[in-house]
Amino acid sequence: MRNITEDNLVDIVLERLNSESERDYEVISKFIKHIHAFIKDLEPTEEEWFKAIDFLTRTGQTCNDKRQEFILLSDVLGVSMLVDSINHRTKKNITETTVTGPFHTSALNFEMGDNIARGDEGKRGEPMVMRGLILDENNRPLEKALIDVWQSDDIGYYDIQDTNQPEMNLRGVFETDETGEFWFRTIKPKAYPVPTDGPVGELLRASGRHPMRPAHIHFWIKADGCQQLITHLFVAGDEHLDSDAVFGVKESLILDFKLNHSTEDADKWQVESPFYDVVYDFKLARQKT
Amino acid sequence: MRNITEDNLVDIVLERLNSESERDYEVISKFIKHIHAFIKDLEPTEEEWFKAIDFLTRTGQTCNDKRQEFILLSDVLGVSMLVDSINHRTKKNITETTVTGPFHTSALNFEMGDNIARGDEGKRGEPMVMRGLILDENNRPLEKALIDVWQSDDIGYYDIQDTNQPEMNLRGVFETDETGEFWFRTIKPKAYPVPTDGPVGELLRASGRHPMRPAHIHFWIKADGCQQLITHLFVAGDEHLDSDAVFGVKESLILDFKLNHSTEDADKWQVESPFYDVVYDFKLARQKT
Repeated sequence: MRNITEDNLVDIVLERLNSESERDYEVISKFIKHIHAFIKDLEPTEEEWFKAIDFLTRTGQTCNDKRQEFILLSDVLGVSMLVDSINHRTKKNITETTVTGPFHTSALNFEMGDNIARGDEGKRGEPMVMRGLILDENNRPLEKALIDVWQSDDIGYYDIQDTNQPEMNLRGVFETDETGEFWFRTIKPKAYPVPTDGPVGELLRASGRHPMRPAHIHFWIKADGCQQLITHLFVAGDEHLDSDAVFGVKESLILDFKLNHSTEDADKWQVESPFYDVVYDFKLARQKT
Repeated sequence: MRNITEDNLVDIVLERLNSESERDYEVISKFIKHIHAFIKDLEPTEEEWFKAIDFLTRTGQTCNDKRQEFILLSDVLGVSMLVDSINHRTKKNITETTVTGPFHTSALNFEMGDNIARGDEGKRGEPMVMRGLILDENNRPLEKALIDVWQSDDIGYYDIQDTNQPEMNLRGVFETDETGEFWFRTIKPKAYPVPTDGPVGELLRASGRHPMRPAHIHFWIKADGCQQLITHLFVAGDEHLDSDAVFGVKESLILDFKLNHSTEDADKWQVESPFYDVVYDFKLARQKT
């Protein structure tokens, strides 16, 4: 086909497809349809097209083993939450999901009760105990559930953003026993901006949007026979709950992070008094068989 | 807004936009609308979403000062040609445009008549003389027009893909005098595959598409008072003219690359006989004032 026009081009591209896999065909053909519709709707200049090429190139090049700028881009566009919503439509009696975000990475294994705040922030920050149960949708305790937790420090940085923190700080993996109980010590998380020194920062500025995320702590929970759960718990009262830069807040995930003044409780949980005493029971969906 | 659903998410994201620039608002809001429509239409799994993140990341990371994988991606999806078509709707009496492609880079300045085939391919390849006029839309010769030309060698490689070629081989910049005439020596270009060792190669394989481009030579022509012209000339008879991997072929850009057996002409143009004798007059649109 040599007489390509604005009108027939998308069909010419689609006709060329000859995927072996039906799903590959579906993914590629739908992407072609929507990206062509976008270009026709926008009518970019050639300079704008090149600016987009450059933006995407730099987004890829900003990624390394400690940073995932394309996930961040997906997050701030609401794409990650849309994918999350589509994939978690059944949510009766299970903990709701939210975005993974760009900061998950490998962590050390800990014993229940260990303190994941292993750097200076452990002294500076507000002490916190996080505890509860890992249950299935029928409220049965899950044994050998793996709880992968990660959070920012008291000034809003994750370990991988901050060379002053010990490696794999403020993250860890815990395993439940037959009671399904978990508990660990940490500091209260704080609100923070997503990284704005890369292409996503440029996009947020061009959008007139702030980069803040309300204070939260991340969980990725896996247990045999259950669907894995990726979620956060958010600190009630945070000023950014209604304007999370990545649209991750769900009402059911906002929790009262209560300040506990009991010195007896502080002794029991081996923290200084007063401390934030946060209790939450996670409920995982049973795997479809 | 805390009760995000599949249905209200796109509006929540759009409401957050507060761009200073109207065009920024238009670009970003339209992209958000179309990318959300694509995700809703496709309903990707979380694994597929991550595969897309990984694909885009690797596409960015494949780019360097000699390779532009995102332009190649745009090319094979037909996006580059769509942007080209939208931006060049008026084409009466001017040379038609086509894609820039991923292989343009800086080149040496040459005198008219110089040979841009400076490596072994200059001995192996089929000698060719390319000549003609640079004119405006009123057929007036353009003085001091800069003709930036680039092409692959006789086995289908550009200099920047092939360490055996001299640096900046088979590319060059020529400047016209008051006659508007140009001529240079080279070798006849050959059909070649776009690079398939990166993410775009994966996409082509998943699409069941071949990676071939019909033989062509690239031109980027600039002259004072005229709109710049980015185009190719294609070799008539090439078997890939109807299935160019980047959809760049236009009927008006296909040219008979004639074999000239005249030893007199060969002496005149300082090439061995027989040689390909290719004549084309480029016509540039006057700049809108």
